[in-house]
Amino acid sequence: MFSVTVRDHMMVAHSFTGAVFGPAQRLHGATFVVDATFRRGELDASGIVVDIGAAAELLHAVLGDLTYRNLDDEPDFAGTNTTTEVLARVVADRLARGIRDGALGPGGGDLDGLAVTLHESHVAWASYDRPL
Amino acid sequence: MFSVTVRDHMMVAHSFTGAVFGPAQRLHGATFVVDATFRRGELDASGIVVDIGAAAELLHAVLGDLTYRNLDDEPDFAGTNTTTEVLARVVADRLARGIRDGALGPGGGDLDGLAVTLHESHVAWASYDRPL
Amino acid sequence: MFSVTVRDHMMVAHSFTGAVFGPAQRLHGATFVVDATFRRGELDASGIVVDIGAAAELLHAVLGDLTYRNLDDEPDFAGTNTTTEVLARVVADRLARGIRDGALGPGGGDLDGLAVTLHESHVAWASYDRPL
Amino acid sequence: MFSVTVRDHMMVAHSFTGAVFGPAQRLHGATFVVDATFRRGELDASGIVVDIGAAAELLHAVLGDLTYRNLDDEPDFAGTNTTTEVLARVVADRLARGIRDGALGPGGGDLDGLAVTLHESHVAWASYDRPL
Amino acid sequence: MFSVTVRDHMMVAHSFTGAVFGPAQRLHGATFVVDATFRRGELDASGIVVDIGAAAELLHAVLGDLTYRNLDDEPDFAGTNTTTEVLARVVADRLARGIRDGALGPGGGDLDGLAVTLHESHVAWASYDRPL
Amino acid sequence: MFSVTVRDHMMVAHSFTGAVFGPAQRLHGATFVVDATFRRGELDASGIVVDIGAAAELLHAVLGDLTYRNLDDEPDFAGTNTTTEVLARVVADRLARGIRDGALGPGGGDLDGLAVTLHESHVAWASYDRPL
Repeated sequence: MFSVTVRDHMMVAHSFTGAVFGPAQRLHGATFVVDATFRRGELDASGIVVDIGAAAELLHAVLGDLTYRNLDDEPDFAGTNTTTEVLARVVADRLARGIRDGALGPGGGDLDGLAVTLHESHVAWASYDRPL
Repeated sequence: MFSVTVRDHMMVAHSFTGAVFGPAQRLHGATFVVDATFRRGELDASGIVVDIGAAAELLHAVLGDLTYRNLDDEPDFAGTNTTTEVLARVVADRLARGIRDGALGPGGGDLDGLAVTLHESHVAWASYDRPL
Repeated sequence: MFSVTVRDHMMVAHSFTGAVFGPAQRLHGATFVVDATFRRGELDASGIVVDIGAAAELLHAVLGDLTYRNLDDEPDFAGTNTTTEVLARVVADRLARGIRDGALGPGGGDLDGLAVTLHESHVAWASYDRPL
Repeated sequence: MFSVTVRDHMMVAHSFTGAVFGPAQRLHGATFVVDATFRRGELDASGIVVDIGAAAELLHAVLGDLTYRNLDDEPDFAGTNTTTEVLARVVADRLARGIRDGALGPGGGDLDGLAVTLHESHVAWASYDRPL
Repeated sequence: MFSVTVRDHMMVAHSFTGAVFGPAQRLHGATFVVDATFRRGELDASGIVVDIGAAAELLHAVLGDLTYRNLDDEPDFAGTNTTTEVLARVVADRLARGIRDGALGPGGGDLDGLAVTLHESHVAWASYDRPL
Repeated sequence: MFSVTVRDHMMVAHSFTGAVFGPAQRLHGATFVVDATFRRGELDASGIVVDIGAAAELLHAVLGDLTYRNLDDEPDFAGTNTTTEVLARVVADRLARGIRDGALGPGGGDLDGLAVTLHESHVAWASYDRPL
């Protein structure tokens, strides 16, 4: 099994609903350093999993729709706690949609799976892993 | 599959028995930077794998029983080489016991697995991965 | 010259005023991983710059007054852009006040200077360095 | 499942064939920071996955045959794009051969698998994972 | 004193002349992860050292003239060993020229100094520090 | 001003004397990831600060006299707390002696200064900086 990972980041404001979140119930924010991993059983004829430049652009576009925003105001997240785990799935699912829409070229169809890790600090991170 | 990871550390002395260990047969020590990863198929109603604050406290408590000690003097480890691998399992098994004892609340029962990585330097680390 | 550094973090929301900030004029947020460095010409009789535990507690207390907040709502920052640079100075000046108030014990008076670095992502950080 | 990872690096020149590579079709170079992970179901009698010193030496030897070279001139890679993915497999397969040849001692035969990650920059890396 | 740092990278091939370089006399390559630090005594009216977006663009432009190239073929470096130290100065001097040419706006004229660090691996890096 | 830094590590046991050290008064241990920085005003004719290979070997030799030991038993440290700060000075002073003894060749005489940083964990480190 092969994989390729690209890293980017986003900076968002949000608040959480639920006593379990303690002081994070207040409006606060986070930098998420985001690693997107693309998996494939065999390499293509060029010797790659995906065009790493296209993968970086796709990730940047997905994060561009989230960064520099207050997620509490985004209709997509109404009634949802935008926890690190939830955002990892949001990013992964949007990457998957981009791949289906051809953002990684025809080779994107040969990918087996996708994992997204969001680092919220130097001491905590969350991941979501899904098939393609 | 979702996961959440928290990081902490411990600082211990120990020595190893066996020619394979070379100079590490002498009493020496290590900082272990410890990553504990909690896995779960679906998020709970709050949108989390576990309460990350509770997870960090549980890890800190488990490491608190090991840190600032000479492991050669700990009855729990009599006759055992406290290698990085062995300590990764010790930390994972103690986290699993804490989860069974309710340290992560009722949601702890929905966790599927646990992985613990101990970084012994910038060029070496070991992991232990187990179901829950 | 000796120095000791401790690392902690804070997670805040804020927005900026001024066209130079582009999309960061919107309400967004950041995790700041914060390194506080304490400098001293000579070590004390125990062989330390400062009690590293006390230094970590002081930093944690200073960050505790900022984290999990929307800085746009804090009276201390009314009319101020809470840029990474500005926050580095805020943290440094509050550490300096804590040192003057005895948070690091009498040895705190022997410190020569202080530097604070705030990492806002894996690709950008800012520092403020001041004498004591 | 247990694993042990050791880190080393190599510095190579190469060029790629195919429009997908854009400017990387020109002769350029890379530092690859290489992580080799060795997996095993149970620890040996000493409490280890492998002798970490022997594992580090084996990795260093494998990288020693690649580093400080122009890979375009290496007969082993004639007609092959030495992408990060391809090189991850080359390193993994050469480690596997070394293990079969006894470089990790008899315990090497108890390893279940091997993963190799090559970090090409702070924002991109690739892995290859194989059974043993 | 305030500073702001931005990080980017370049990937080059080169060889060195001189027995001191051992195997690095052969054509090989490197990824340089590049940190550019801009220093200033006081912040501007917006609360910044420089427009961090403009600083990142300037660094990216400077590295764009070097990356994906064989430096042995660049006329600018004829007869020069493009060591990590030498390249740190090249990048710093080109940043300084860009600042003089207005790439950071009029505030660029208030900068006191500049430091550039090139990380050639996880275990070695070099810096060049100069006034402005 | 130019500098070159090389990184290595050591793993030691020790204990501290003094109530300020709390639980670290017990015998424990640490991995110190050690960065040694060599400074010089101008590069030599080869375009380097020092032969980076020789610098790495010198650092490795200095750390080789400390690693895999219980520092409480070392005559050199009788009556001394081997704190991170103290060990940073020990490593720096031994590097300086090695440089005087020619370990970095005649160019070692052109170095202006030396800094040593010991990372004791992911959240704490100490440095010692001295002229040459």
